[in-house]
Amino acid sequence: MTFSIYAATVPPMRLMLKNLSSILSKAQSHLEARKIDPNAFLAARLYPDMLPFIKQIQIASDTAKGAVARLAGVDIPKFEDNEATFADLHARIDKTIAFLDSLPEAKFEGAESRKITLPLRDRTMEFTGAEYLTTWAQPNFYFHVTTAYALLRHGGVEIGKSDFLRGSVIA
Amino acid sequence: MTFSIYAATVPPMRLMLKNLSSILSKAQSHLEARKIDPNAFLAARLYPDMLPFIKQIQIASDTAKGAVARLAGVDIPKFEDNEATFADLHARIDKTIAFLDSLPEAKFEGAESRKITLPLRDRTMEFTGAEYLTTWAQPNFYFHVTTAYALLRHGGVEIGKSDFLRGSVIA
Repeated sequence: MTFSIYAATVPPMRLMLKNLSSILSKAQSHLEARKIDPNAFLAARLYPDMLPFIKQIQIASDTAKGAVARLAGVDIPKFEDNEATFADLHARIDKTIAFLDSLPEAKFEGAESRKITLPLRDRTMEFTGAEYLTTWAQPNFYFHVTTAYALLRHGGVEIGKSDFLRGSVIA
Repeated sequence: MTFSIYAATVPPMRLMLKNLSSILSKAQSHLEARKIDPNAFLAARLYPDMLPFIKQIQIASDTAKGAVARLAGVDIPKFEDNEATFADLHARIDKTIAFLDSLPEAKFEGAESRKITLPLRDRTMEFTGAEYLTTWAQPNFYFHVTTAYALLRHGGVEIGKSDFLRGSVIA
């Protein structure tokens, strides 16, 4: 058995996106049981100049689709960023997973040494595929999934680390 | 170039631990400038039944040393979990990085298919090395580093995602 960049990228991101969906469902149950306006979570921030919850999910989706597209050498699908409800966020996650699943493993052949150029606001980052995945795409992806979790946890939703790690498997 | 489990594990965890140290330093400057009791951050939680900040750093360290030790097939070093100050937390992170750096890459040969057994409170998890790294150790590690970041961000420390992704490189 060899360890491939596909194995390091697609299955774990798919798992985390599914866990994120399960966590969203727990947040919805929490809101419904208490008759709370969904915007209490959808617009939540941990600090006034931080991006709100909806944006955390959108960026988690962006980092996942960006990572797999760049590594596979295909165009990154554009999503509209017009999500406004929990149902929209579930659909966004589902679309992201469908894109991950649409890429054949063969496309990732040699991706570890593919040159990845990332234009940022103030500079351009250059990586090999392996560096890009492990020191940029993965931390970035987990950052936003964890921040989404943290916002719900801070808001009192009864979730624990097992939801984060295995939520969709346990459910 | 092949993509190895060593490359997917040790360099990115070392980078994130260094970034975490830089983030701690920013929190210390924030406290000193405002003459705030360091416990305002050290004991901070996002919710009353969540683990406090110090524990988040300890578990980030635990997940890193546990991951590399299990993958390399060596004993996990025991740390005392007696950190009480920012200086202690920096030392904990440095000890963790030193352990990562002490393991020769050759120890990770074939680690992707090594059988990893993880005793949890209520059950035992079994993985291949590759599954353990990508669906357990990595999400767990990033969860605690991001939660530590989130606690400081929530507390008003002026940090951004570039500190999380590249803090020790930019500094």
